[in-house]
Amino acid sequence: MNARRVSYVAAGTLTVEDVKTAPPPAGHVRIDVAYTGICGTDLHVYHGAMDARVDPPGVIGHEMSGRVAQTGPGVTGWQPGDHVTVMPLAACGQCPACRAGHSHICHRLVFIGIDADGSLQSSWTVPADTLVRLPDDLRLDHAALVEPTAVAVHDVRRAALEPGEKALVVGGGPIGLLIAVVARRSGADVLLVEPDPYRRSVAESLGLTALPPGTDDFTDALARWSDGAGAAVAFEVSGAAAGVTTAVDSLATRGRLVQVAIHPQPREISLHRFFWRELTLIGARLYERGDFETAVALIAGGDIPAETLISRIEPLDRVVRAFEALESGDGVMKVLIDCRSAEAGGAR
Amino acid sequence: MNARRVSYVAAGTLTVEDVKTAPPPAGHVRIDVAYTGICGTDLHVYHGAMDARVDPPGVIGHEMSGRVAQTGPGVTGWQPGDHVTVMPLAACGQCPACRAGHSHICHRLVFIGIDADGSLQSSWTVPADTLVRLPDDLRLDHAALVEPTAVAVHDVRRAALEPGEKALVVGGGPIGLLIAVVARRSGADVLLVEPDPYRRSVAESLGLTALPPGTDDFTDALARWSDGAGAAVAFEVSGAAAGVTTAVDSLATRGRLVQVAIHPQPREISLHRFFWRELTLIGARLYERGDFETAVALIAGGDIPAETLISRIEPLDRVVRAFEALESGDGVMKVLIDCRSAEAGGAR
Ligand SMILES: [Zn+2]
Ligand SMILES: [Zn+2]
Ligand SMILES: [Zn+2]
Ligand SMILES: [Zn+2]
Repeated sequence: MNARRVSYVAAGTLTVEDVKTAPPPAGHVRIDVAYTGICGTDLHVYHGAMDARVDPPGVIGHEMSGRVAQTGPGVTGWQPGDHVTVMPLAACGQCPACRAGHSHICHRLVFIGIDADGSLQSSWTVPADTLVRLPDDLRLDHAALVEPTAVAVHDVRRAALEPGEKALVVGGGPIGLLIAVVARRSGADVLLVEPDPYRRSVAESLGLTALPPGTDDFTDALARWSDGAGAAVAFEVSGAAAGVTTAVDSLATRGRLVQVAIHPQPREISLHRFFWRELTLIGARLYERGDFETAVALIAGGDIPAETLISRIEPLDRVVRAFEALESGDGVMKVLIDCRSAEAGGAR
Repeated sequence: MNARRVSYVAAGTLTVEDVKTAPPPAGHVRIDVAYTGICGTDLHVYHGAMDARVDPPGVIGHEMSGRVAQTGPGVTGWQPGDHVTVMPLAACGQCPACRAGHSHICHRLVFIGIDADGSLQSSWTVPADTLVRLPDDLRLDHAALVEPTAVAVHDVRRAALEPGEKALVVGGGPIGLLIAVVARRSGADVLLVEPDPYRRSVAESLGLTALPPGTDDFTDALARWSDGAGAAVAFEVSGAAAGVTTAVDSLATRGRLVQVAIHPQPREISLHRFFWRELTLIGARLYERGDFETAVALIAGGDIPAETLISRIEPLDRVVRAFEALESGDGVMKVLIDCRSAEAGGAR
């Protein structure tokens, strides 16, 4: 049987090719992928910044939904046709992080979709223990948002948000908006800060207050909103040095800063302010299984504005166009690839 | 009645002078000061770095013990002769920090001994609500360590240390050693890192393992001690950029870094590592009343090695010599000033 897949070959080069599907080995499951979302990490790979980990040519993609096609020997509990998503982590089970119960940040973590082949293909084989069940009546396009929603659920959980607390979200891309929505559903009073007018307009369409950083408008709104105290929690989702400063400066005494975005370079941080106001900085990475299950429940319950977040859906053969649209950044939030709509036969 | 006091006049200049004592106003208590310890903050003032807050001439000193001499109108619960120390904080009661119950980090905090006259005098008048009772049989020289011990108690409490956890202390001055001792008493397994051989020798005399930073010895010891995982908690007490790096690099996955020392300049921090290992940075400043009471109990119970930490006691008239000894740093841990031993009559 034929399938179709997208290979990352080198910086800026993705190729779409036909491949033969093989039956899954023991403990594995072959999935007919329905949708794969493209995220900032995929763009980073596309730019050639992660060649050491991707080991090109490789298949990227890790935000997905699909149906079980075939189970390998020894796999129980899964039937062809089951709707699934994948928590794309394989931990070693033996390092200090795994031994301490934090296998999602295993020191030898294999992130499937970077360190191993991902879901930008019509047929994908993964270890059975990465599967997460989806309700049959959950739309598979919406279900492609489970992975980024799980990130947001994890971040909000790391913040230990309490109902009524003021939460500032710094950065209004897909993860920032998901954090804002999940925090709001946890009872927090949310304010978003984002320089891009399009992203602010999307936030506002979700009933969020969104302001440009570094303006008097923002300073005034922060003071009014928090009664002069500052935010109890700030989520740094921008990845920019200025975003870190905005987050630190906006926090109330004893405030918590959840560091979500990746900062490749060290950042200058006012440790004096952390000391003076007894602030806390909390690193947050990926998700645990419970976060994935919560994310499924939130999407199935209609708590995640999937229609608003999914800007467009492109067929697999137009994957390059999708990456270019995301590159330009204009007027695009989340783009999904319909991995069923491959031109090759058999994968549909 | 005459008393004797030390005035900070300008950078590098302390004068000892006679003053008349006045009866305490309403709600205040006059104390015959027994001992005042000198700390890094006092040295900082002495160097002229805090003139904006001290408003010279002013009396510094905030680590003390003494006896109630006289109570002002409306003061209840205190009798002349009572042994006391002072928690040198006056909060506004109205700012966001005070309203949230964190009055020790009040936004308009008056730190008595910096922002108001301190205890380097034989007779000191303070608000009655700053008094903390000392047991009659607690030596007053040892009791001058209550304030720095309260800092250590607060820092260890902010770390939420659990028995058996590995705690690294970065910096082996008086506060670092007190943190090490308090953390060990909380059941932590403590390792200390400190470049100065004298300070390491004091730590070792207390049964602590102390190593120089940036050496293979330290790296090997850290790995052996933590079974390759790294420290669960690191206390940054050095105030040096290199100390921050040592602390961050030594932490285990999900480790907590308690920021104790003051860093006037921003520091370059690897936010990536905070993200990657889900680390937490916790600012810790001063103490709350419960920390002070715990500190009194620890010293009274013999849990703090006061004899080892108090390097010498100088009479009030030799205060300049005491500051110079601390300046040189050599072979000196904590220096106390005996405020009773003033040459002027009446204060004894
Ligand atoms: Zn992603
Ligand atoms: Zn592992
Ligand atoms: Zn002090
Ligand atoms: Zn206040």
